[in-house]
Amino acid sequence: MRFGVALFPTKQLQDWVNSYRKRYDPHYALIAPHLTLVNAFESSEEEAETLAKKLRDAAEKHEPFSLRTSKISSFHPVNNVIYLKVEPGEEIIALHKELNDIVNSPEQAYKFVPHITIGQKLSDDEHFDVYGTLKMQGIDHEEEIDRFHLLYQLENGQWTVYETFRLGKEAE
Amino acid sequence: MRFGVALFPTKQLQDWVNSYRKRYDPHYALIAPHLTLVNAFESSEEEAETLAKKLRDAAEKHEPFSLRTSKISSFHPVNNVIYLKVEPGEEIIALHKELNDIVNSPEQAYKFVPHITIGQKLSDDEHFDVYGTLKMQGIDHEEEIDRFHLLYQLENGQWTVYETFRLGKEAE
Repeated sequence: MRFGVALFPTKQLQDWVNSYRKRYDPHYALIAPHLTLVNAFESSEEEAETLAKKLRDAAEKHEPFSLRTSKISSFHPVNNVIYLKVEPGEEIIALHKELNDIVNSPEQAYKFVPHITIGQKLSDDEHFDVYGTLKMQGIDHEEEIDRFHLLYQLENGQWTVYETFRLGKEAE
Repeated sequence: MRFGVALFPTKQLQDWVNSYRKRYDPHYALIAPHLTLVNAFESSEEEAETLAKKLRDAAEKHEPFSLRTSKISSFHPVNNVIYLKVEPGEEIIALHKELNDIVNSPEQAYKFVPHITIGQKLSDDEHFDVYGTLKMQGIDHEEEIDRFHLLYQLENGQWTVYETFRLGKEAE
């Protein structure tokens, strides 16, 4: 079973991103706009609860933080992903590291570029066309992130949330 | 902003339901297979945290329970919804009542028929055709439900999970 860890920005930002994803992202219907913290990995349904427990403990150690978006960028030539760049603040870097340590993700070896995908799997021509139009646009947006989610993937590709984890110590 | 409360069955059951929803449910891409506990209601983004706090407290008072499905049924002539019937055990009835009391949902006036939608918005002809084929099928399935979710709807109709609530007192 495939799991992943992601955070969802506010409805306002999700709606804005979806206005583009609708046309440029074939994963549009599989998951709401998100920022991936841990890429898809395999685990069993039985291990989910143990994993959730570890993520819950990790969430307590990280405080809510501010997410700032700046410009629209692309991962080309690695792949034709157009994304909204999220400032790599130390809080999100630290959270990413700890979560990937928990699941022993091989992606730790790569530099983490926090982003929210706007378009992907476009042909080179389409990619440059869309990117050319969008890259002049920025979206200066700041919001607070106070939770992240463990998700699992259904056979049709859709993602379901297994559990949310709120950052910081419980006030109650 | 529109919110709703639902529970997601196991991946196994979701995959089974999706094999039909793919063809018979136009909401297929908007949300994973689910059982609605509180129908969509309006609330503000600011009130979400207060609401989540109340749901969190309610979740603590209800223990995980067994969900049993039996036959495939239909809400016709009220509407052309084909669904997987879930046994109305006292735990789910009590949970439904408390959650609807919290949001002052008008649906309390109606009898709660716990179900997982398989198909909807079909024409009468299609509905009877599909229902005729499916109603002979049952799915004798039992699983444990230990959480439910507060979701909100994006402008495109997609639902995003705001928070999960685990049933019962924290063991930790």
